[in-house]
Amino acid sequence: MRIALGIEYEGTDFLGWQRLAHGATVQAAIEAALSKVAAHPVTVTCAGRTDAGVHARCQVVHFDTEAQRPMRGWTLGACALLPTAVAVLWAHEVDPAFHARFSARSRRYRYRILNRPVRPALDARQLAWEPRPLDAARMHEAAQALLGEHDFGAFRAASCQAAHARRAVFGLEVRRQGEKVIVDIEANAFLHHMVRNIVGSLLPVGRGERPVTWLAELLAGRDREAAGPTAPAAGLTFLGPRYEAHWGLPAEVSR
Amino acid sequence: MRIALGIEYEGTDFLGWQRLAHGATVQAAIEAALSKVAAHPVTVTCAGRTDAGVHARCQVVHFDTEAQRPMRGWTLGACALLPTAVAVLWAHEVDPAFHARFSARSRRYRYRILNRPVRPALDARQLAWEPRPLDAARMHEAAQALLGEHDFGAFRAASCQAAHARRAVFGLEVRRQGEKVIVDIEANAFLHHMVRNIVGSLLPVGRGERPVTWLAELLAGRDREAAGPTAPAAGLTFLGPRYEAHWGLPAEVSR
Repeated sequence: MRIALGIEYEGTDFLGWQRLAHGATVQAAIEAALSKVAAHPVTVTCAGRTDAGVHARCQVVHFDTEAQRPMRGWTLGACALLPTAVAVLWAHEVDPAFHARFSARSRRYRYRILNRPVRPALDARQLAWEPRPLDAARMHEAAQALLGEHDFGAFRAASCQAAHARRAVFGLEVRRQGEKVIVDIEANAFLHHMVRNIVGSLLPVGRGERPVTWLAELLAGRDREAAGPTAPAAGLTFLGPRYEAHWGLPAEVSR
Repeated sequence: MRIALGIEYEGTDFLGWQRLAHGATVQAAIEAALSKVAAHPVTVTCAGRTDAGVHARCQVVHFDTEAQRPMRGWTLGACALLPTAVAVLWAHEVDPAFHARFSARSRRYRYRILNRPVRPALDARQLAWEPRPLDAARMHEAAQALLGEHDFGAFRAASCQAAHARRAVFGLEVRRQGEKVIVDIEANAFLHHMVRNIVGSLLPVGRGERPVTWLAELLAGRDREAAGPTAPAAGLTFLGPRYEAHWGLPAEVSR
């Protein structure tokens, strides 16, 4: 039986998603909890790996098991065993053809920047900080150059292991919300550090140090060295993947 | 010279506001930072003491100093010395007659409850949790009985040191915001645990276990034993006090 789970986590105290030989990761915490509920070793596959310090509103994983448990048993059992910063939101039995990563049609990320003279305290674990005034409308205009299918080599980490850099960006919105500037981006898939590198290049545009055309220039140049620095992990949240409705998953991850 | 400061903090890792002989408190952290900036010992007086685990969006304090510093020097200097979970938002020189506690005309608190079957992970440090469905409109209706000046003995902690229990509630709103239920309350002042005890009594009304008239009955009975349990600290944020506009403080703490 194949089961899909929705998972929420606060990534601050984890070394990222992927299981490591040493150190706390979200995958290792989830697999340890599920293995106890299943009473056999469980390995999970996720929709999108997140880096150290990055959060998730609805990560999706799948795993296979012969254990017979009510779906509530998986959520409640795992939640009881997981650390405070991780929770299983829902569990659904899915068709064996479903694959958390390969079935995903898109991924959505949100980047949040506190834009005020003083650093954040109350939400410091989940915000980036920019003390200089940002023009969110200007950032939004600049970002529109990234819509569509392109080679995103300019925004790809040196450590990126993807076979090629072509990705399709379906939506990219930058807006102000009080003292915060919010960047929402949806793409078929993302290169390593792609969101944080795009945000790192939008910031100089927002501060007026680079022209509105800069993102288009960087994209065309495909030169990572030319683009802005990688924005901090704390501001980034993986909102979740989207799947075709026929898989029968909750509305928040269906389209 | 008397200076007023606006202060934001995430209270999870503090034993509350008030300086203690042992353990980390917000007041001790603020006084240590300001004493270094001033180069003399500084003692601060706050608008409203908060308990262990309670947060503040804009606590206000005042202190006296002979040190000559630009106002930015107080904010930037203190922020550089304070732990991540505390920040000084602004500093204003005020009339020596200003007193952070006695000049305050009201205090505003917000209580946030995540109302879904699964416990919070992403905002676990700043949310209470109620897995059973809450009827926010019913809670709001019940809460309106507390508006005005009353003896709030029914919602007063045994440890409360106030001379009397009469307080004037100026506003009390309960509303649903997606998966969250938000309680906003403004009063001239609050008894110890008053907000958390009111919320603890609104929850059984929201779950349908108590009638809408229950808050009015509890208020009239003045019996702490009859009311609901104290709601958890994590859900509570002190939004800040309000002062008369003539003191010249920022809009968020003026009326």
